[in-house]
Amino acid sequence: MGGDRHVVILGGGFGGLATAAALETAPLSVTVIDRRNHHLFQPLLYQVATAALNPSDIAKPIRAILRDQRNARVILGDADTVDLDGKRVRLRDGESIPYDDLVVATGARHAYFGNDHWERHAPGLKTIEDALEIRRRVLIAYEEAERETDPALQAEWLTFVVVGAGPTGVEMAGSLVEIARHALARDFRAVDPTRARVILLEGLDRVLPPYPPELSGKAAAQLRRLGVTVRTGTRVTSIDARGVDLGDERIPARTVIWAAGVAASPLGRALGGETDRAGRVIVEADLTLPGRSDVYVIGDLASVKLDDGAPVPGVAPAAAQMGRHVASCIRRRQAGQATTAFRYADKGSLATIGRRSAVADLGRIKLSGFSAWIAWLAIHVFFLIGFRNRILVLLQWVWSYMTYGRGARLITGGPPEDISEEAGPARVEGGRPGPL
Amino acid sequence: MGGDRHVVILGGGFGGLATAAALETAPLSVTVIDRRNHHLFQPLLYQVATAALNPSDIAKPIRAILRDQRNARVILGDADTVDLDGKRVRLRDGESIPYDDLVVATGARHAYFGNDHWERHAPGLKTIEDALEIRRRVLIAYEEAERETDPALQAEWLTFVVVGAGPTGVEMAGSLVEIARHALARDFRAVDPTRARVILLEGLDRVLPPYPPELSGKAAAQLRRLGVTVRTGTRVTSIDARGVDLGDERIPARTVIWAAGVAASPLGRALGGETDRAGRVIVEADLTLPGRSDVYVIGDLASVKLDDGAPVPGVAPAAAQMGRHVASCIRRRQAGQATTAFRYADKGSLATIGRRSAVADLGRIKLSGFSAWIAWLAIHVFFLIGFRNRILVLLQWVWSYMTYGRGARLITGGPPEDISEEAGPARVEGGRPGPL
Repeated sequence: MGGDRHVVILGGGFGGLATAAALETAPLSVTVIDRRNHHLFQPLLYQVATAALNPSDIAKPIRAILRDQRNARVILGDADTVDLDGKRVRLRDGESIPYDDLVVATGARHAYFGNDHWERHAPGLKTIEDALEIRRRVLIAYEEAERETDPALQAEWLTFVVVGAGPTGVEMAGSLVEIARHALARDFRAVDPTRARVILLEGLDRVLPPYPPELSGKAAAQLRRLGVTVRTGTRVTSIDARGVDLGDERIPARTVIWAAGVAASPLGRALGGETDRAGRVIVEADLTLPGRSDVYVIGDLASVKLDDGAPVPGVAPAAAQMGRHVASCIRRRQAGQATTAFRYADKGSLATIGRRSAVADLGRIKLSGFSAWIAWLAIHVFFLIGFRNRILVLLQWVWSYMTYGRGARLITGGPPEDISEEAGPARVEGGRPGPL
Repeated sequence: MGGDRHVVILGGGFGGLATAAALETAPLSVTVIDRRNHHLFQPLLYQVATAALNPSDIAKPIRAILRDQRNARVILGDADTVDLDGKRVRLRDGESIPYDDLVVATGARHAYFGNDHWERHAPGLKTIEDALEIRRRVLIAYEEAERETDPALQAEWLTFVVVGAGPTGVEMAGSLVEIARHALARDFRAVDPTRARVILLEGLDRVLPPYPPELSGKAAAQLRRLGVTVRTGTRVTSIDARGVDLGDERIPARTVIWAAGVAASPLGRALGGETDRAGRVIVEADLTLPGRSDVYVIGDLASVKLDDGAPVPGVAPAAAQMGRHVASCIRRRQAGQATTAFRYADKGSLATIGRRSAVADLGRIKLSGFSAWIAWLAIHVFFLIGFRNRILVLLQWVWSYMTYGRGARLITGGPPEDISEEAGPARVEGGRPGPL
């Protein structure tokens, strides 16, 4: 099926899949190439990191998503370079795939601003493996604290630092408090998880910097009410295995999570065009690579400006809109028409802060607290791919809401490391009775 | 709050947890030590390996299970040796924990009969990591086949060998066929997953050797009807990355799964008593280590004989019964009474073979086919720990049953390895339309 024209899409995220879907009825063939076999609903990744959801609740095989799209095929492969003149994509294993139109949608990863050695001590949150590693570290920290007898060291294990107060950082911090206050509260005997400290650090002067200042203020107040220590205008100067330095100040903490900034996929620079500081490709108004009408760059990899000069935000709806726009450009060119300029329709922003609490900036409507939280839940369930996932996620949320539980508290992926010192003779303390 | 007497339980499997639970009202304190933070419902592990269930559906933190048991605490740690005279357990990190009574319930792992180098090519199935690794290999095999152009190599990727036709092997083989015939059937363009071959090898003369011969025959017939190639009386002489040797015969296959035999945890031999060929500890009638009335060995680690000389099977109900028996012995000794001999109450055996098909040996009642499958479902849901898990697993099973789907088809834990050769120019074949 499909015509002779061949569209290659690199990346099966929101942008890539929106492009593919919008080409379903076009007389051409589509190949989606991704290093991963699954599309990931990244907005909920922090819920995997905090043991509320399972990986498969927020991820679905790209093949399964495109199963019934007759003109699409999927390749599990790692795109390495693009031969723009020869019109071929070269994969890391040497295979090369010809294209007529290329859509580059390989997104971004977290970045450490030249301090890549921080990654070991402060993992970021972009993939399922990242989320499971963070989950493992958080759960191990409580286990270590339980066995630690030195109060200072115990406090180190019970201190959680989140660097960066964008939506992911805010959501992580809120969830970490809830794990401590509710999910784990009665699980331990020697330590009291409710004494855990969660510290949210932000370099700019307010949390959720891309949001209106009014909502930032509400979010900070909600975070503080939950018990998060919010510190804005602070600059991290060093991170090691035992804590974080802010200039002369030291925060001892065994668990640090990085939510401060991303860098575009290296494929952006490999295209040879101009890129911005974060490695995003500067594109034409129709999202093509300058000088290459057959190469489109979309999503987090593209640097696109709004009319007021502000960048289009790196969020899922923007990527999907770009994908649909590019599909329409490809169809227009195939029909011998000129392409059109991309316009971003801002549907608003949302961030949850914890149980029953969120902020929403829906243009004229700004919500905070419970109403924003309900809006957040509804929108996130609605946009999850697949009916099964929607039902399962909804059920797990209802369950968590009723019980304060987090069902996926598994430490997997490695044996416990450097379990420290002698815990002394067995000690028994009473668990409080409670529901369940 | 517990008295002064301290019971240490090594292992949070079915045996260890049954012991702990049965000591809840006893005037003593209990410490459960496990290398993992979770109890695992091993009978359903093959469903994680075959993408039907999530890890957290069949695993629950040991702490959460014992949360409300006031006299119990949990340590995440790796027991290394036991100082029987000093009455202390030494952990791998050097900590040592004193006990008054010790219950060793560290179970078994898969074993390769002196061919440990086979493990790399033929992983076994005992932990969540094992299950995720097998899931990864199975899904990658189809991805590789999709990109392979040489029909012989494609057939290698589409051949799955299961070594060992005990319950785990039979269940794996049945599930692998279902993945090929249903879950993946429409996902690929260049290969037809329904052409995949699943070969089940067994060294003895029938499948499910511990079951009555009549049920073995029925199971083999059901497997063959599903499309599994069943070969009994065959001896694997070598396994490498490209296939399996049976003496002079070679089966080319890229995916081999080991379900043939277990060896007891090394802690059994470390106790210094007599062990059987598989490393299981020969115990007294009351399940104590000979000469040590304060050390009990239970579950898969104990070698216990029935009155007719046959071994008590290594199944969850047997381990739980031993655990409860040992708890009663500890209570009796604390009350100054003599311990009693363990008696195994055989409640029967069950194995599923696939969708709507199973065999059950419930003593006088022997079932096969649909009625056995319903019994299998009911019993497995009932014995899952935690209401939440029961509901979620039931829902996923209902969903899978209706849609033939397997929702957890994620490749995680590593990049795709040695993706082979050139797939040639993009090819597009039609996907069949269908529901969902």
